[in-house]
Amino acid sequence: MDIKTYKKEADYSYTLGAFPTFELIDAMPEQVEEIIVHSSFTDRERLEEKAGNIRITENNKLISKLSDKENVYVIGVFRKFDCELEEQKRHIVLVNPGNMGNLGTIIRTACGFGYYDLAVIEPAADIFNPKTVRASMGSLFRIRHQKFADFGEYAKRYPDRKLYPFMLDGSCSLHDAQAPGSECYSLIFGNEATGLPAEFAGYGQPVRIEQTEFVDSLNLTIAAGIGMYVFAQEK
Amino acid sequence: MDIKTYKKEADYSYTLGAFPTFELIDAMPEQVEEIIVHSSFTDRERLEEKAGNIRITENNKLISKLSDKENVYVIGVFRKFDCELEEQKRHIVLVNPGNMGNLGTIIRTACGFGYYDLAVIEPAADIFNPKTVRASMGSLFRIRHQKFADFGEYAKRYPDRKLYPFMLDGSCSLHDAQAPGSECYSLIFGNEATGLPAEFAGYGQPVRIEQTEFVDSLNLTIAAGIGMYVFAQEK
Repeated sequence: MDIKTYKKEADYSYTLGAFPTFELIDAMPEQVEEIIVHSSFTDRERLEEKAGNIRITENNKLISKLSDKENVYVIGVFRKFDCELEEQKRHIVLVNPGNMGNLGTIIRTACGFGYYDLAVIEPAADIFNPKTVRASMGSLFRIRHQKFADFGEYAKRYPDRKLYPFMLDGSCSLHDAQAPGSECYSLIFGNEATGLPAEFAGYGQPVRIEQTEFVDSLNLTIAAGIGMYVFAQEK
Repeated sequence: MDIKTYKKEADYSYTLGAFPTFELIDAMPEQVEEIIVHSSFTDRERLEEKAGNIRITENNKLISKLSDKENVYVIGVFRKFDCELEEQKRHIVLVNPGNMGNLGTIIRTACGFGYYDLAVIEPAADIFNPKTVRASMGSLFRIRHQKFADFGEYAKRYPDRKLYPFMLDGSCSLHDAQAPGSECYSLIFGNEATGLPAEFAGYGQPVRIEQTEFVDSLNLTIAAGIGMYVFAQEK
């Protein structure tokens, strides 16, 4: 296999660093093409034990070519994968997320609160870019995700769900938002800079996270984290 | 005034960009030394109106020297300031925050949920670094903050408060944590990589944010955001 710097069009991507690489091997061993290690990697014994039949290659030059940061000593090469979401489970829907770090962080938080189904409405940051994978701390391999050209396509594919679009001017406060009653619901978050388009005010129960007049808005990853936490607890 | 690239030891710092600069002028006009604008800055009329007697200087070269990113067209030069916290108000205590972006993001979130008193336990990221100021979106100018050499110094200066250290193995879940009953409480968060030292398990009511086995921990800014939201709502 000829391994090149990551490209969005490629059918494979990389985990940069030990933590996401171990997560990849644990959660999706069948997707792993091979593991590249640096000669200074200190955890090789554990890696070999976990990797089983997966090929491990030592190649310092390739490590430095693929990683944009220092301190990467192991890289997993994996084939990209498609998923269908589970219909009866709660979904996170991200409409046009623009930043790979944020996308990865939201995936990590979702996984932490037991949301394992993520819909991404395009255009969107590349979910398989090594930066996204790294920010997710490998949680990408623990969830199902599916891309849609627009929200209508998602709503058609997964109808009859309770929708909770998070909007600055949502008609209901998060505190007072009505519990969904089942797991068949979707928490919907917009783009970092622009939020959700105005038409979402007409979908389901638009939710606002109440805040003081002193900030313009919350950071997207924090708003999503709060929404996921509250719905996971009591809604 | 001879304006140099930011240094931690300097007694002045900068707001990079229009949003934090307008926040600075709004919240703390007395701290502003001067405003530097780029000849391409498009909002100069509003700036002049808001700035009142503050001197505005056009200097493209200085803008590019002080800003590490593109797209900065206005910079506020301000004198650093000291604050005492309000004793009877709720506090956020950050123990050894290591990342300027995270520190700024937590300040922005705190301001959004009505926490206006921040204690920072050193060693810590520089609260006045332009990167912190920028990540706070100028919220730094809306809050009081005070530095302490260690947590003991903070506890001695502000005694008789309810303490809620956030820890992965906190004895009480956030959901069940007892409400403080007054505003005289402190939410305490540790370092990004190491969390709070083990001794904090003996202070007040240690709180854990319950999460699945699939993540190592939550991102600090998200854990802090969730903690602040929940205590602001119902505790």
